[in-house]
Amino acid sequence: MRKQTTPDNQLQVDHPDGSGYLPGLAIDMVIFGFHEKQLKVLLLEYQNTNLLGLPAGFIKEKENLNEAAKRALTHRTGLHNIYLEQYYVFGDYSRFDPEPLRKILKSKGMNPGDDHWLLKRFVSVGFYALVDFTKAVPSPDLLSERCDWYDLANLPPLMLDHQAMIEKALETLRANLDRKLIGFNLLPETFTMGDLQSLYETILGEKLNRTSFQRKILSLDILERLEKKWTGGAHKAPYLYRFRQSREVAVPEKSFL
Amino acid sequence: MRKQTTPDNQLQVDHPDGSGYLPGLAIDMVIFGFHEKQLKVLLLEYQNTNLLGLPAGFIKEKENLNEAAKRALTHRTGLHNIYLEQYYVFGDYSRFDPEPLRKILKSKGMNPGDDHWLLKRFVSVGFYALVDFTKAVPSPDLLSERCDWYDLANLPPLMLDHQAMIEKALETLRANLDRKLIGFNLLPETFTMGDLQSLYETILGEKLNRTSFQRKILSLDILERLEKKWTGGAHKAPYLYRFRQSREVAVPEKSFL
Repeated sequence: MRKQTTPDNQLQVDHPDGSGYLPGLAIDMVIFGFHEKQLKVLLLEYQNTNLLGLPAGFIKEKENLNEAAKRALTHRTGLHNIYLEQYYVFGDYSRFDPEPLRKILKSKGMNPGDDHWLLKRFVSVGFYALVDFTKAVPSPDLLSERCDWYDLANLPPLMLDHQAMIEKALETLRANLDRKLIGFNLLPETFTMGDLQSLYETILGEKLNRTSFQRKILSLDILERLEKKWTGGAHKAPYLYRFRQSREVAVPEKSFL
Repeated sequence: MRKQTTPDNQLQVDHPDGSGYLPGLAIDMVIFGFHEKQLKVLLLEYQNTNLLGLPAGFIKEKENLNEAAKRALTHRTGLHNIYLEQYYVFGDYSRFDPEPLRKILKSKGMNPGDDHWLLKRFVSVGFYALVDFTKAVPSPDLLSERCDWYDLANLPPLMLDHQAMIEKALETLRANLDRKLIGFNLLPETFTMGDLQSLYETILGEKLNRTSFQRKILSLDILERLEKKWTGGAHKAPYLYRFRQSREVAVPEKSFL
């Protein structure tokens, strides 16, 4: 009856004390993609519950926190070596609400008691990831029916505090965009100057001047210019560019002084 | 026999399951101060163990994570309304080492079993705080004998991964220094331009040009100039300044574009 065979099927959701996982600590992931001038996030859909939420993960007893996040990210996207960063720990008591999880477990035919490990208070470490939309293959987890991209600009209602988690992740992405040049992780390997400007505009939520954007980006000396993009009408074909550095590596920060 | 009477004496260190606290989750705090051109951090000293470490905290069952950090910070410094920020979650399995805590508990006359809550694996949320050195009144916790300032440039060996926690906090402080102008939290209410430059130089670990530092800082329009500082020889007395904004409020970030 199980729909997938990825290794996190090992998750003992039906084990009342979650044997093998750290208690009370979860991971939630805001996985950003960029496609057709839209920022997108991956969401899980839970059948027969009307619930939608962020991909989550748990930490094995002898596993590193960051490794657990990488593992969950790989399972949801099929991708390795993705830009992934801790950005905030969501630890308010008010986020404790066992009802959505109880509904999900019941929809799977379980009848969990109040002391089931998944129904206790969780503190959640928020991670955000930047993936190449064209390469990700979204895949649901053991409790969900679908995993799919949703436009950030037009999100449906989400379970628990997942909307706030996404907002905080976007805020962090904006703040880090210049400093670490991490936006490049959202583009395919080659892209036009227009693609890059469109990405910056979408993340920052504002229009940028074309000439000064281009001048500024080129002055950073981080792009390699390739051949022109073949568009049929060769006359106005734009150049393709590639990011010089390994995209996981942050560019050294400049001080304002 | 207890040396202090602050409310965190409620901590049930001698209760084997830590009743009342979230399991496996701790807070560690890098509390920065600035004095005589030195960055300093607060450390706890544990008698008869040769152990030194960062102030820590635990989260009550119905308490917000950030509130728990504020509570611990207030207990260690006597101060309220301090700049305090989450900066990283330390969650590697390799940091799990029950021996230092066992030594500390034994030095207090306890003989904890292997399943004592304090001897299990902890994931720790790192917070850093910026305090006005002249106002803080360091105070030890229930398990420690002393709480005192140490020069960051000359730290003794620390327990567990606390050295790495301090390094990561300093790295974050440097990265956020301009963006959020948070350095002001380390100065007394009024200061000279020389004090401010000295603070920036100490945090960044490099000398800055006096004229351009002053021009840049004044161009931000965040300082209010007060009377001259009385130094006896009135001729060369420097002006005193005050930060215009509430010091907990971050200044809006500027994009490089």
